[in-house]
Amino acid sequence: MTDIFDKYGEVAVRHDALLEEGADPFGVCLEEVYSPTEAQVNGRRTILAGTNNYLGLTFEPDCIEAAAQAIRKHGTGTTGSRIANGTYQNHRRLEMELARFMNCKHALCFPTGYQANLGMLVGLAGPKDVMLIDADSHSSIYDGARLSGATIVRFRHNDPADLERRLRRLEGEGQSKLVVVEGIYSMLGDRAPVAEFLEVTRRCGAYLLVDEAHSLGVLGETGRGAAEAEGVADEVDFYVGTFSKSLGSVGGFGASNHPRFEVLRYCSRPYMYTASSAPSNVASVITAIDKIRRDPSLRERLWRNAQEVYDRLSDQGYKICAPTSPIIAVQLPDIETAYYAWSRLLEAGVYVNLAVPPGTPHGESLLRCSVSAAHTEAQIDEICRCFEAIGQELERMAQAPALAMQAGE
Amino acid sequence: MTDIFDKYGEVAVRHDALLEEGADPFGVCLEEVYSPTEAQVNGRRTILAGTNNYLGLTFEPDCIEAAAQAIRKHGTGTTGSRIANGTYQNHRRLEMELARFMNCKHALCFPTGYQANLGMLVGLAGPKDVMLIDADSHSSIYDGARLSGATIVRFRHNDPADLERRLRRLEGEGQSKLVVVEGIYSMLGDRAPVAEFLEVTRRCGAYLLVDEAHSLGVLGETGRGAAEAEGVADEVDFYVGTFSKSLGSVGGFGASNHPRFEVLRYCSRPYMYTASSAPSNVASVITAIDKIRRDPSLRERLWRNAQEVYDRLSDQGYKICAPTSPIIAVQLPDIETAYYAWSRLLEAGVYVNLAVPPGTPHGESLLRCSVSAAHTEAQIDEICRCFEAIGQELERMAQAPALAMQAGE
Repeated sequence: MTDIFDKYGEVAVRHDALLEEGADPFGVCLEEVYSPTEAQVNGRRTILAGTNNYLGLTFEPDCIEAAAQAIRKHGTGTTGSRIANGTYQNHRRLEMELARFMNCKHALCFPTGYQANLGMLVGLAGPKDVMLIDADSHSSIYDGARLSGATIVRFRHNDPADLERRLRRLEGEGQSKLVVVEGIYSMLGDRAPVAEFLEVTRRCGAYLLVDEAHSLGVLGETGRGAAEAEGVADEVDFYVGTFSKSLGSVGGFGASNHPRFEVLRYCSRPYMYTASSAPSNVASVITAIDKIRRDPSLRERLWRNAQEVYDRLSDQGYKICAPTSPIIAVQLPDIETAYYAWSRLLEAGVYVNLAVPPGTPHGESLLRCSVSAAHTEAQIDEICRCFEAIGQELERMAQAPALAMQAGE
Repeated sequence: MTDIFDKYGEVAVRHDALLEEGADPFGVCLEEVYSPTEAQVNGRRTILAGTNNYLGLTFEPDCIEAAAQAIRKHGTGTTGSRIANGTYQNHRRLEMELARFMNCKHALCFPTGYQANLGMLVGLAGPKDVMLIDADSHSSIYDGARLSGATIVRFRHNDPADLERRLRRLEGEGQSKLVVVEGIYSMLGDRAPVAEFLEVTRRCGAYLLVDEAHSLGVLGETGRGAAEAEGVADEVDFYVGTFSKSLGSVGGFGASNHPRFEVLRYCSRPYMYTASSAPSNVASVITAIDKIRRDPSLRERLWRNAQEVYDRLSDQGYKICAPTSPIIAVQLPDIETAYYAWSRLLEAGVYVNLAVPPGTPHGESLLRCSVSAAHTEAQIDEICRCFEAIGQELERMAQAPALAMQAGE
């Protein structure tokens, strides 16, 4: 009898090999969390420079107070789906606030951002439709596309011309065509040319969905995301967003002006057949949206910090994968170097994300940093100084490979 | 150009027709929530008899306190996945507590129960495997099976002999075979014959996964679920469970004794590519598990209440779909009658779930009641008295159809 885990033999071997080298980059534990930007890791006070806590709202006193009060008032969970006993007044209020924030008529909440993509894609496209997705799409988009049963067509990353060619080839095929892009891509931090994508979809009779997971609260005059930054916010057909990044909670949403959008409440299984978000999670998001609306200085601080890290790391000679954004992906020559640098940064008290093949576009080995509005000047300085030290070390190692082996031990 | 929502034309018409009749059974809003068993609905104080709040722990003071403290200490969300910055000490502790509770070596947490099924099924079975699922499986099992890419074989609900026939027919096909059953089925409240299913899977060289979503904390000497109730808890290969029913929070888990189980942390996309559970949700679950472990009287009260509702509704002449369980599904002759009875119960201050085709097994029209350990004697009495009154009304209507039309207006 074949063991059910035999199919993962190679993954297990690869992972075990990594563990022999030292710390597990995918098993980091935050032993204590002191603030949006500091935690204890391996017993050491560490600056968090690899989260998605763009606005630092996880410790915002008003959000904490709203969440704690909601627990006392409405309990620790709803124990029901939205279509049964899991719609509380605040779920409706959150949907109204999200609709208002996105300037859309309708918004639907989901208990995770992953499920928001699943629920929207499964709800919007069926086996008779065609879904065109960017080649660098997030896993939740791949999974949602697959679960929908639609014909899936991948187009070249951030390439509206390639999308148009593929849409032209599909003329007459499929009932509806849905194009899916992301405002900011999570790995490299590059933005989708949303206005160009919109033009192409309009010309070809397709629908456009923009996943603003990493761009909500980050881009645009009012923080609506990449589409707003490009001046086409009100023309996008469908939005997906998440609560677990700039909004500092957990959950996600879909939004649209389509008059029949609400039918998804009765047709999208990942919306219907899951417990609704806990009252505390809903309450903190409502408060966070209000913060973002009232306080544009959050976004200003975020971009100031992003610009500084970008400039200093560039000056240090690092190759950064995309123009300035709160996600600063530093490209290193190979997995081993990236892992070494990641470990050294962590030892020095700076946590960033290690991103290596097969999980990265074009097989790149990356140190993915992300900055937060909550990073202090001192923290930004410390992050940049640690990168500088590692950079110098890597340079010495490159010049003396024999030494490198020793240093790596 | 075809509108993307045209595919839902029929659903929309059906739903609009229902709305014309009165209250929307799938759009109920709990305006205020007073306790695990009481809320304000349509401005009226209402007994909740259609939730999954089996042990009433959503308002348990220790769970509330643990959740509120976790928010203050660790923030409103993690803004990261488990494989990046989203593993806090308490995520690990919760997994240890779950493993201990289930008497398994390993446990993995997910941010929703829906995603727990997705993550487990996608992780365990791939395109070369065969998944055999009960015909009455929950949507999350259907979705997980589909997303896995495995060959899907449905067997007759709760029928080990039918499963064995199908497994025999599959001999030599597929690398691994995974059989999926639920401890208690959410619609009818009937239990899977887990011991028999286990025998069949063992004889045929298949693996058995039991989803204890509705049975965790409800069945078994220590509350582990249906497998424990049948004395085979330690032989089941894989478990799925949820935090959004007896545990009163939101999230889910998988558990197993398989020595290679942890590889799912690096192979299951619905585990890897989603933000982890918020600190408050994790903290309340840890406390809830402790409650269940220490206080078996919770389960005793639950079953006493279930038995009373079951006995009284049976005595009133209602047809109940399964033997006593905390889910008491009352079968009515058709959608119209079920909807009418549901509306009248709500007007009388009792909320139950309306379950109608196509969402029900065999096209049944059901009033799905669920009881809680937190229901007081007075509440149980009130629920039963309201059912009695509606029953008498339905009987009069059946005898005088013309009158029925008037009463229905």
